[in-house]
Amino acid sequence: MTVQRAVVLVSGGLDSATALALARAQGFACHALSFDYGQRHRCELAAAARVAHSLGAVEHRTFPLDLRQFGGSALTDDAIAVPEAPGEGIPVTYVPARNTVFLSLALAWAEVLGAGDIFIGVNAVDYSGYPDCRPEFIAAFEQMANLATRAGVEGKRLTVHAPLIDMSKAEIIRTGTTLGVDYGQTLSCYNPDGTGRACGLCDSCRLRAAGFAAAGLPDPTPYQ
Amino acid sequence: MTVQRAVVLVSGGLDSATALALARAQGFACHALSFDYGQRHRCELAAAARVAHSLGAVEHRTFPLDLRQFGGSALTDDAIAVPEAPGEGIPVTYVPARNTVFLSLALAWAEVLGAGDIFIGVNAVDYSGYPDCRPEFIAAFEQMANLATRAGVEGKRLTVHAPLIDMSKAEIIRTGTTLGVDYGQTLSCYNPDGTGRACGLCDSCRLRAAGFAAAGLPDPTPYQ
Repeated sequence: MTVQRAVVLVSGGLDSATALALARAQGFACHALSFDYGQRHRCELAAAARVAHSLGAVEHRTFPLDLRQFGGSALTDDAIAVPEAPGEGIPVTYVPARNTVFLSLALAWAEVLGAGDIFIGVNAVDYSGYPDCRPEFIAAFEQMANLATRAGVEGKRLTVHAPLIDMSKAEIIRTGTTLGVDYGQTLSCYNPDGTGRACGLCDSCRLRAAGFAAAGLPDPTPYQ
Repeated sequence: MTVQRAVVLVSGGLDSATALALARAQGFACHALSFDYGQRHRCELAAAARVAHSLGAVEHRTFPLDLRQFGGSALTDDAIAVPEAPGEGIPVTYVPARNTVFLSLALAWAEVLGAGDIFIGVNAVDYSGYPDCRPEFIAAFEQMANLATRAGVEGKRLTVHAPLIDMSKAEIIRTGTTLGVDYGQTLSCYNPDGTGRACGLCDSCRLRAAGFAAAGLPDPTPYQ
């Protein structure tokens, strides 16, 4: 039987770890892809490598991508602070076109590998107002991808899976726990300390902590 | 009156130089974007800088993007030779998902700049079998881009212009000549020598030379 390969975007966070576990559970040989995009905290990349290894990815690559050249986000521009209280509308932690860029590079790698499947751990329920976490964005990207590539021309279907898109954070955590994800290895915080411990205050930490509480599971996050 | 900004993809070749001239002729303040993607010939990037400067771009950036990490094309993989005779189907010079990746990064920059327009010099007539040079690909990318970004959510329209898409090479050359493009500054060849002179043999050289002949204009290309 032919090996079915998938490219899985792995950030080091809770959601993408769960997406990787789901891809593996579906039988895919998983090629994990992370981006060194000038994010403030290198420990995210260390978390991504831990997650890819422990969840059985056949390969993990970290692609250098200097989004600081463009700036425009609290995550890629030192002049913009990460807020510690929720705001209105699209938050300053939104990185312009980030998921479009990440999915495009996943598509490039998928085409070289002969992989017909890409997994991304976006979530529309807790999506914090990011436009590129909505189901209509994922559907439009998939449609474009099937016109962009050799595979599309040759009649092979490229599928973009966003298996968490309709899940609550609690459902994500319960799903991953069932599949053996060790969430103590993941990092979601926007403001971790030098050893990778979470702040417990930022949007991302708040959503994560509420998810463990709602799931009725212990929170293994190392906090500062 | 507000300045209307556009991001223009500039490769150093004939087509993208013409696209830049057309964007300027429409009154846009043009931000030229090139990619250092591991292409075999650094002189392409020198040509891009010359073109951006001489055609009045307000800014030119070269974004490093190591597509050699994925390989899969004669242009990004030393193990694959550039052919000197036309073949069937999608050629080996096709770089997987290249235009998708380039347009995604143009979109990221456009969003930071507040630009509502992106120009790309793709051409479907002489497109050599590349799937990501077809009009249906450009239309699908534009639709996706309007769902991906802050501008889309806020009801501002992002337009992807591919003004050369239905032109023959001769029409492109006549158009650019009318707008003052100096094609002697551009480089289209897949196999230039160390000083940037064209081979005259590869697919790209052949299409270009035939275009000048059909346009009835002298070919200013420096050949080896």
